[in-house]
Amino acid sequence: MSKTRLEAFSDGVIAIIITIMVLELRPPEGVEIHALEEMGPDLAAYILSFVMLGIYWNNHHVLVGAMRRVSAGVLWANLHLLFWLSLMPFATAWIGRHHDQPVPVAIYGGVGFLSAVAYTILQMTIIAADGRGSRLAQAVGNDAKGRLSLAAYVTAIILAFWNYWISYALYVCVALIWLVPDRRIAPHAASD
Amino acid sequence: MSKTRLEAFSDGVIAIIITIMVLELRPPEGVEIHALEEMGPDLAAYILSFVMLGIYWNNHHVLVGAMRRVSAGVLWANLHLLFWLSLMPFATAWIGRHHDQPVPVAIYGGVGFLSAVAYTILQMTIIAADGRGSRLAQAVGNDAKGRLSLAAYVTAIILAFWNYWISYALYVCVALIWLVPDRRIAPHAASD
Amino acid sequence: MSKTRLEAFSDGVIAIIITIMVLELRPPEGVEIHALEEMGPDLAAYILSFVMLGIYWNNHHVLVGAMRRVSAGVLWANLHLLFWLSLMPFATAWIGRHHDQPVPVAIYGGVGFLSAVAYTILQMTIIAADGRGSRLAQAVGNDAKGRLSLAAYVTAIILAFWNYWISYALYVCVALIWLVPDRRIAPHAASD
Amino acid sequence: MSKTRLEAFSDGVIAIIITIMVLELRPPEGVEIHALEEMGPDLAAYILSFVMLGIYWNNHHVLVGAMRRVSAGVLWANLHLLFWLSLMPFATAWIGRHHDQPVPVAIYGGVGFLSAVAYTILQMTIIAADGRGSRLAQAVGNDAKGRLSLAAYVTAIILAFWNYWISYALYVCVALIWLVPDRRIAPHAASD
Repeated sequence: MSKTRLEAFSDGVIAIIITIMVLELRPPEGVEIHALEEMGPDLAAYILSFVMLGIYWNNHHVLVGAMRRVSAGVLWANLHLLFWLSLMPFATAWIGRHHDQPVPVAIYGGVGFLSAVAYTILQMTIIAADGRGSRLAQAVGNDAKGRLSLAAYVTAIILAFWNYWISYALYVCVALIWLVPDRRIAPHAASD
Repeated sequence: MSKTRLEAFSDGVIAIIITIMVLELRPPEGVEIHALEEMGPDLAAYILSFVMLGIYWNNHHVLVGAMRRVSAGVLWANLHLLFWLSLMPFATAWIGRHHDQPVPVAIYGGVGFLSAVAYTILQMTIIAADGRGSRLAQAVGNDAKGRLSLAAYVTAIILAFWNYWISYALYVCVALIWLVPDRRIAPHAASD
Repeated sequence: MSKTRLEAFSDGVIAIIITIMVLELRPPEGVEIHALEEMGPDLAAYILSFVMLGIYWNNHHVLVGAMRRVSAGVLWANLHLLFWLSLMPFATAWIGRHHDQPVPVAIYGGVGFLSAVAYTILQMTIIAADGRGSRLAQAVGNDAKGRLSLAAYVTAIILAFWNYWISYALYVCVALIWLVPDRRIAPHAASD
Repeated sequence: MSKTRLEAFSDGVIAIIITIMVLELRPPEGVEIHALEEMGPDLAAYILSFVMLGIYWNNHHVLVGAMRRVSAGVLWANLHLLFWLSLMPFATAWIGRHHDQPVPVAIYGGVGFLSAVAYTILQMTIIAADGRGSRLAQAVGNDAKGRLSLAAYVTAIILAFWNYWISYALYVCVALIWLVPDRRIAPHAASD
């Protein structure tokens, strides 16, 4: 019951975040085919954030599916994750408008970094509520992908002030390593 | 479980897409009855996209209702469909503002075409997960309606540069052939 | 199953419509207490539309709760209702900005009228699917409240060009007669 | 059934309210790091309102989870609460833009006060429907936290005209005393 509502609320918030980003895709003033070119950065930023939020939804789905107990701590850890994800449209709009400026690129990475931290905290809170010996605890293990993502974000934020293309490349890499939900948990969830 | 959440998330995203399009319907500056005339193209574009999204929701409903297994591939094929649908408000706003320009009319068709492609991919992914002999595989058959729609979109995109009214007529035709959900699948879903 | 998803989607759309209207409530430029006065019409329009949409949600809830069968016709009658309700934010924004002009006041009534027509069609479609002898058919009876509302809207639209305060009074009256969901259906639904 | 839909609709509205506030977080014009400073008040206001809405969602969850009967009165008391919560984005945008002006600070408190009153009414309506001897009635008891919050809001509204920092401090205090859902009801809800 609690778990269903936690999922429904999270799904609602993520669905809205993912969709209001499209409000930033304003139709261009011009009506020539090259008017679309000026939309390039906005569209690329939208695609990147759409994929990132899709990954979070997907993995959140698997994580909560494997959860056994909803504690007050889990509720707040979940809201904390939703908070950072909710800043995605802001960060996306900023890099869409100034894709070649170090500060927006670094801030985008900062929102990504803090979302990843919040996800890790949520995962730890769920494991703490479910017990160290739970299936989830064993599946997550030492969480190599989580650590790697955090390191990639920190690197991207620093390098944004030197060459922001490296930062973008790192953001894409983080998306790629998360595209598949964790195989160790997923089969059970999929068989429900 | 997985299936319920997939449906709930898709419903949420489609509900939001369908509703934020109305944000483009700005009240006219004037307060005379003919002030509404300038809203004509915006309103017509809104109606067309509302119907298209209603059709997608309706058919998505039937498709997912007939699905037996949720695989990771299905989750991503579904997000891919939602991505293209999420560009509808952008394309709708553009033809609302420049309904008599070939490029916006063609881009609108392009978003429709890629949504239709994404729907076909989702259908194929579900059939691949459920098995070739499944009820869904038999029901879809050679997917004549799907092929016809794709051909209509391609024609509409090309003809937009010659006479955009033909393109609009084709968009309306595609809507009409999809208005009724596939009778071969629907009765089972409706009896649930 | 179908019924659950129909409800979930309708709830989603109505929830979004009711909430995006608040985007029209822009904070005033001034920071004095009388700066709020200029928000009066916007706020009053928002309250009226919020109550109207709350009534629709409430009665939709009771209507769909009493429904036995989901047909394709019901799905489209439902989308048709959602379409007219989705124009509420537009009509609300217009009377908020020009509350003393006949055309916006009449258009607001027009959206209300067509929403009420769409609700009546949905009710008839559900009764047609469920059968004339169904509990819903007996409960709705001759639908005096529905007819009264339609008459009130038509009167309000015409009188808007003579004295728009009468129109507003009629809109409030329609809200009042619908505030309580139909007692003949509600007890059963509430006991679920 | 009724209860599920009440929860789903409330979740939807709260999810949308919480998310559209982020639309006020416009990317700054500048691209220097200090361009973020001008976003400080907006961001702080967003965080405060996000936490407040998270608390309402959380406690609403517990309250409705403990509820036994959905009456028409409960439906309207719930919509009344959602109405005041829906004014949060407006009040948040205003203090974000004019954080150092007494009127916006007081209005923010007014929206908070009326939301708290609406929550108290909802609680009383649910207890009235469930019966005085119900678990919820015993758990709520004399509702010390509710009374304290109302007193804090009234104080904050008055003091805003003298020193608005005290008002902000009181808003934060109200958030802190509500952060943990009521322990007397929560354990039962969590065990569902």
